[in-house]
Amino acid sequence: MQNFTSFADAGDYKALLAKALEIKQNPYGYQHIGKNKTVGLIFFNPSLRTRLSSVKAAYNLGAQAWVLNAGADSWTLEMADGAVMNGGTQEHIKEAIAVMSQYCDVLGVRTFPTLKDRDEDYNEVVFKKIMQYATVPVVSLESATLHPLQSFADLITVAEHKQKERVKVVLTWAPHVRALPQCVPNSFADWFSEVDWVDFVITHPEGYELDPKFTKGARIEYDQKKALEGADFVQAKNWSSYQNYGQVLSNDPAWMLTPEHMTGTNNAKFLHCLPVRRNVEVSDAILDSPNSLVIQEAGNRVFSMQTVLHELLK
Amino acid sequence: MQNFTSFADAGDYKALLAKALEIKQNPYGYQHIGKNKTVGLIFFNPSLRTRLSSVKAAYNLGAQAWVLNAGADSWTLEMADGAVMNGGTQEHIKEAIAVMSQYCDVLGVRTFPTLKDRDEDYNEVVFKKIMQYATVPVVSLESATLHPLQSFADLITVAEHKQKERVKVVLTWAPHVRALPQCVPNSFADWFSEVDWVDFVITHPEGYELDPKFTKGARIEYDQKKALEGADFVQAKNWSSYQNYGQVLSNDPAWMLTPEHMTGTNNAKFLHCLPVRRNVEVSDAILDSPNSLVIQEAGNRVFSMQTVLHELLK
Amino acid sequence: MQNFTSFADAGDYKALLAKALEIKQNPYGYQHIGKNKTVGLIFFNPSLRTRLSSVKAAYNLGAQAWVLNAGADSWTLEMADGAVMNGGTQEHIKEAIAVMSQYCDVLGVRTFPTLKDRDEDYNEVVFKKIMQYATVPVVSLESATLHPLQSFADLITVAEHKQKERVKVVLTWAPHVRALPQCVPNSFADWFSEVDWVDFVITHPEGYELDPKFTKGARIEYDQKKALEGADFVQAKNWSSYQNYGQVLSNDPAWMLTPEHMTGTNNAKFLHCLPVRRNVEVSDAILDSPNSLVIQEAGNRVFSMQTVLHELLK
Repeated sequence: MQNFTSFADAGDYKALLAKALEIKQNPYGYQHIGKNKTVGLIFFNPSLRTRLSSVKAAYNLGAQAWVLNAGADSWTLEMADGAVMNGGTQEHIKEAIAVMSQYCDVLGVRTFPTLKDRDEDYNEVVFKKIMQYATVPVVSLESATLHPLQSFADLITVAEHKQKERVKVVLTWAPHVRALPQCVPNSFADWFSEVDWVDFVITHPEGYELDPKFTKGARIEYDQKKALEGADFVQAKNWSSYQNYGQVLSNDPAWMLTPEHMTGTNNAKFLHCLPVRRNVEVSDAILDSPNSLVIQEAGNRVFSMQTVLHELLK
Repeated sequence: MQNFTSFADAGDYKALLAKALEIKQNPYGYQHIGKNKTVGLIFFNPSLRTRLSSVKAAYNLGAQAWVLNAGADSWTLEMADGAVMNGGTQEHIKEAIAVMSQYCDVLGVRTFPTLKDRDEDYNEVVFKKIMQYATVPVVSLESATLHPLQSFADLITVAEHKQKERVKVVLTWAPHVRALPQCVPNSFADWFSEVDWVDFVITHPEGYELDPKFTKGARIEYDQKKALEGADFVQAKNWSSYQNYGQVLSNDPAWMLTPEHMTGTNNAKFLHCLPVRRNVEVSDAILDSPNSLVIQEAGNRVFSMQTVLHELLK
Repeated sequence: MQNFTSFADAGDYKALLAKALEIKQNPYGYQHIGKNKTVGLIFFNPSLRTRLSSVKAAYNLGAQAWVLNAGADSWTLEMADGAVMNGGTQEHIKEAIAVMSQYCDVLGVRTFPTLKDRDEDYNEVVFKKIMQYATVPVVSLESATLHPLQSFADLITVAEHKQKERVKVVLTWAPHVRALPQCVPNSFADWFSEVDWVDFVITHPEGYELDPKFTKGARIEYDQKKALEGADFVQAKNWSSYQNYGQVLSNDPAWMLTPEHMTGTNNAKFLHCLPVRRNVEVSDAILDSPNSLVIQEAGNRVFSMQTVLHELLK
C-alpha cells in the first residue's frame, strides 16, 4: 500500500480485513511498527470520529500524532497553480503539504467538496494536489468524493456481525435538513459492490443516483420497501443529488428509517456513519434498538485506521 | 473508584490524599498503570489549568491523551431526548459520548452551568447524560455545580503546607466583574467540610449562601474579619448568588482581600483556584507575597488528576 | 544553555551546529534526554512550521508535548503590572506563565510585535515578562524582534549545502501585500553576521534598514543586483520599516526575486522561511527550481528545535 484513498488502494481486501480483525484482537501487538513514527492529521473542516479514532489508532500502534486545523491553527491556503498571491491566501498548498510531510511519516488529510463544481469535486482536484506535493504516504480522512476509512470500518463491522455465509447489505438514502456530500455513499458502494459475500442493493428516490463509477453496476431499487426485503444489514445516509449537483431534490419524510421499515428485513442490523440527525434521518427507536451497531461501527474506525497505518508504515 | 465527580466519589479521602502525596514524590513510578491507555478530554468552554494539568497527568502516568474543543473542533451537540434534529444541532450527545468512549479509556469532561436555570444546573442534567452515555469511567473537569479536581488539589496543597495537627481553613467570597458559577466554592465546601483535621468556615455577604447540600452545616459567618480570625489558610473566590440564581447582588470592594484583611489570621497561607482578577478579587500584595500558594496549588492539579487516573485505570 | 531567545543564547555556535548535524543523522538517539519530559508550546498567533516542527522535535527526543492557542483555547491575558483587572482580560500573564511552567519542563512561546510601538516591541516587553515569570527554560518560537529557531535552521541548511570553505550569503528584502515584522531578517542578521565562514550582505530599498544591534556592521547594499553578485545562498524575505516603524514604504515589484535576478549569482541556492507569497515575493520559477532549498530548510526546523531541547534538558 502506497497511499489509502479508495477501495482500489486496499489491494487484497480480504487480506486487509483479516489483518484488521487480527489487530483488533491484539491492538498493542504491532508497536514496533509505529515506534518513532509520527502521524500528521490535517482537517479542513470539523471532525470528531475521524480525528479521535485516528489519534487513538496511532497511539495503539505505538506512534505519535499531531492534529492541525487548517485555517484556524495555521494559514489560509492557496490552491491555484501560478497564482499571484496578493490576496487573502497566505501560503500555497504546494509548500504547506511538502512542509507538513517533513514533520510526519504518514499524512492524513480531510478535504471536502464544493458541492457546486462537480468536475472539480469528482476530479478530486484538491486531494490530487495534496497527493502530488506530499512526500510521505497519504491517507484520505475523507475527500471530495470518498471516505474510505469509514467504508473499511463498515466492512469490519459487517464481517464481525454477519451470521451466515452471504449477507444482503442495503444502503438507503435518508432525509436531512442540509445538502450533504456523496462521499459516504459513494465510498460504501465503492467497497461493498466488490465484496464477494455481499448482495448489495442501493435504494433512494429517483434523482439521487450516485456516480456509476462507484456503484459499479450494483442493483439500484427506487422502492425502499422492496430494497429492504430480507436485508441483513441496513446502512442509512443522506446525500444530495449527483446529477443535479449538490441539490436537495426532495426530502420525503417517508424515507426516514423507522421500525416499521425494518419489518420486512431479516431482523437487520443497523449502520450509520454518524453524526446522525435523530428523528430526521432515522428514528430514535432504530438508533436505540439492540440491532443498532452505530457505536461499534464508530469504534471500528480505530481499527480501519490502525490497519491502514500498519500497512503504510510496515 | 468508578467515576470522579464529587467528594463522595473519592471514597476514603485520607487514603486518596496519601496516594497523591506518594505519587507526587514519585510521579513516573506508576507508568505500568497508564501503558497503552488513552485519556480523552472534552471541553465545552476554555481552559488552561485543567486542560494542561490533565494532559501532564496522563503523560506522567505513561498514558496518552487527546483534547477536543467541543463545538469548535467537532459538531454542535443536541442535548434533548426525543429531539427532532432539524435545527442547528448536528449530533446528539448520546452518540457523541458513546463514540468518544470508544476512543479512550477514561473520559474527562468539562461542562458549565447556564446560571439561568437552577434546577437544570443543580440537577447536573448535562453531566448526568454524559455519565449515562459514557462506557468508560468519567472524570469531572468541572461540571455545572462542582470542580472536584480543584478541591482535591486544594486539599493536597493544604496538607503539604499545614504546620500543625488541626488547621483553620476559610473560604471567602470576593468581588468580581462578572457573574460566576458556584462550582469552585460548592466543591471546596463539599471537600473541606468533611476533612476531620480542618476547622472550616465560609464567609460571604448575605445573599451569597451556597447550597446547603454542599456546605453540609459548615459555619457560615457574614463578618469577613471575624471569619478570618486565626485562619491558617484562606481561599478567596467570587461566586454569583445561589438563591437569586446567577445574580450579582453586591460587589462591595471592601471584600477584596488585601494584606490588611490578613492581619487577624495566623499568618495565613493564601489559596485561589485561578484565574484571578488582580486588584478586583485580591490585591497584588496578597498574590505576590511569599504566603501565596496559588502557583503550587495550580501545580497540584497535576497530582490530583494523576491520582484519580491512577485509581480509575489501576 | 539556560534559555534560547537569540544568537547570544546559542553560546558556541559551532558546537551547537555540529550537535544539530549529529542529531539529524541519529534523530532518535537521545531519547534518554527527553524521557518523562514535556514540552509546552504556547502560540499567540497562527503557526504551521513552528508548531509542528516543535512537536516533532519533542517526539524525536522521546518527550511529550502540548500546544496551547492562547486566547482561543484558554483565557485572554493581562500584560500590565498593577492592573485593576475589571475589563476584558481574564488572567494575568504572571499567573498564566508561572502556572504553565508547572505543566512542562521547557516552555516554547510565540509572541508577536505590535508594529506600532517600537519601544515596546524592541524592548521585548511581553517576552521579557514571560522570561521573568517562567520557572522552566524558555524557547522563543518567535518574539517581537527575533526568530532564532528559524535562523538556526537556516544555518544548518547552509552548512549542509555549502560546497566550499567560505560562502557568500545574501539576505534580500522582497515585496509583500502586508506590513510584516522584522523578526526573521533581524534574526538572520543576528546569526549570519557572526558566522566566520560567511560573507554576509543585506540588500533592501532605502528606508528598510534594520536595527543596527542585529546587523552588527554587516555590509548593507541598496543595489540588489550588486548585492547578489557571486552569492552562494540567497534568503528572500519581506519586512516593514524599522525607522518609519511598521510602515510599508515602497513595494517595488522589481525586487521580487526571479531567475533573472539570480543570473549574477554563483548558481545560488534559494532560502525562504515560509510562508511565501508566490509571484509577489518570489516567482514560481525560483521556488520550483532545483536550487530552492525551502522545503529542506523547513525540515531543518525539527533539528534546530531538537538540538535546543537537547541542550536545555540534558
